[in-house]
Amino acid sequence: MRIALDAMGGDHAPAEPVAGAVAAARAYGIEVALVGRTVAIEAELAKHDTAGLALPIIEAPDLIEMDEHPANAARRKPNASINVALRLVKGGTAAAMISAGNSGAVMAAALLTLGRIPGIERPAIGAVLPTPGGRVLLIDAGANTDPKPSQMVQFGQMGAIFMEKVQGVRNPRVGLLANGEEASKGNELVQATHPLLAASSLNFVGNIEGKDIPAGAVDVVVADGYTGNVVLKLTEGVASMLLGMIRTELTANVLTKILAAGLRPVFRRVRSRLDYREVGGAPLLGVEGVVVIAHGRSDARAIENAIRACKEAADGGTVAAIRSLRPTKVAGGIA
Amino acid sequence: MRIALDAMGGDHAPAEPVAGAVAAARAYGIEVALVGRTVAIEAELAKHDTAGLALPIIEAPDLIEMDEHPANAARRKPNASINVALRLVKGGTAAAMISAGNSGAVMAAALLTLGRIPGIERPAIGAVLPTPGGRVLLIDAGANTDPKPSQMVQFGQMGAIFMEKVQGVRNPRVGLLANGEEASKGNELVQATHPLLAASSLNFVGNIEGKDIPAGAVDVVVADGYTGNVVLKLTEGVASMLLGMIRTELTANVLTKILAAGLRPVFRRVRSRLDYREVGGAPLLGVEGVVVIAHGRSDARAIENAIRACKEAADGGTVAAIRSLRPTKVAGGIA
Repeated sequence: MRIALDAMGGDHAPAEPVAGAVAAARAYGIEVALVGRTVAIEAELAKHDTAGLALPIIEAPDLIEMDEHPANAARRKPNASINVALRLVKGGTAAAMISAGNSGAVMAAALLTLGRIPGIERPAIGAVLPTPGGRVLLIDAGANTDPKPSQMVQFGQMGAIFMEKVQGVRNPRVGLLANGEEASKGNELVQATHPLLAASSLNFVGNIEGKDIPAGAVDVVVADGYTGNVVLKLTEGVASMLLGMIRTELTANVLTKILAAGLRPVFRRVRSRLDYREVGGAPLLGVEGVVVIAHGRSDARAIENAIRACKEAADGGTVAAIRSLRPTKVAGGIA
Repeated sequence: MRIALDAMGGDHAPAEPVAGAVAAARAYGIEVALVGRTVAIEAELAKHDTAGLALPIIEAPDLIEMDEHPANAARRKPNASINVALRLVKGGTAAAMISAGNSGAVMAAALLTLGRIPGIERPAIGAVLPTPGGRVLLIDAGANTDPKPSQMVQFGQMGAIFMEKVQGVRNPRVGLLANGEEASKGNELVQATHPLLAASSLNFVGNIEGKDIPAGAVDVVVADGYTGNVVLKLTEGVASMLLGMIRTELTANVLTKILAAGLRPVFRRVRSRLDYREVGGAPLLGVEGVVVIAHGRSDARAIENAIRACKEAADGGTVAAIRSLRPTKVAGGIA
């Protein structure tokens, strides 16, 4: 299997993407096509032992910066690494594409190059959140700020497929994010979505509250992209604040410093269980191909895991499964 | 000063509310009117030393259960403790009212009994969130799931008044919760609200992201009540999950258990700095009187702090200050 990696995307490109690709090629025995400026990529590759690894370079002379307007840049830079990598997927010479670059540009370019899966109204970003009991998929994590109820139902369907095919969760529990558990709760969008989800073939458990997400009460959390993005960044922020407070308190005096030193492995384990780098990026679901968006701050470890996530999504057949949702779309809504 | 306490409200009523009232009367030298069933309240008071404390009982034969329909119960039970306590405020014989009961019923009853402050379109719940750098007011934390842009601006104005008058923050920084910092980010509501906040006399710092809330990047976070409620409960949930994970890891073996025992005061300090019980309840801003909603799980310590919050809001003159917002309302929006 060949995965196309945007070697120029992310805050630490191309060094970290290339290092992650080397690690992934070795760990999973797959081919990783490094898309970007050949000279820069070759310089990074020279720092690693790549003997026996399949790491071809695909030249892409252009690149999209993190602060460029997503849709404009995607359209005006056909030879940017994001677009070249997506064309490998479109042409069938790569099974999946992954980028830690401008995520809005990845979405826009994926829509332009790969297009939507027929029947899917709006592709959505699924963010995998680690919880003590397992992983939870939050969908939509930021692609659609004002979705329609029928689109929310599709988010739930695509999310359930991902959790089943890629994360191996049988009959995933789907919850609708609301401001209370009762069916009457929620804003207008949530209230209109609730009966559609209840009538669908999903394992819909009803409305859930913010606290139910980290508690792992469901496998798939359906939310509009505005709220989903707030949830994603708030979760990261609260965890980071709390660990920071504990660190400050532990280093406040000599005694606690000594005790804390002995507990370092404990804190390392907690941090690693919550680490976005272990999760492996967020799938963009609903486009005609496997696309994984990695955190802009991704280091080699995060890229390696995101490449693994690409492989798992391609192996699991998420795109084909989402394509098969099509017949369930009926006039006026989703059955 | 006399504060009216709904002695029958909350999961642990009347025991914890009465215990909290005794503590507050002693700590702050104020009168706390205990509103509810005289016999039950007298039985609880008998467990405490109340010599010299001002703790009159005001009979209210009825009560509103936690699972009753808020608006219906508020209307159909005029002699419920929530309604009787609010009438003390309305009649001027109490400076403020606090309840840990059915929060929807408190809101509905406050609107019925006290009414809105002229010019305020919708009262909102302000939730005080503790952060390492200080307190942040999240408004609206759940009263209005689909507010209008002009109402969002008023949330910001009322929140800024609260932070200034009650928390002593000079020229509070107001942020609009969004899925990105750029002014172009947000859902339709946020995009329509942004220019109104920018044109207001508030110290508006622009859009903020979920991670900026625990980081204490602003003093007032403006959000619709649906998203605000998700933020409030998610913050609680993530902190509780993380502390639970650390606890599990620390008790995993004998060595870490011993080390952790020495660090117990550290964790106690961290927990107490994040504890909702120390915050003292959420003000309902925009009604004609000081109303504080306490957590349903409130214990005596939480009630004592909520009574202190009532006193501070009454001392600070939040209602008069919000009333003075009226002239700033102009046709088509808020200046």
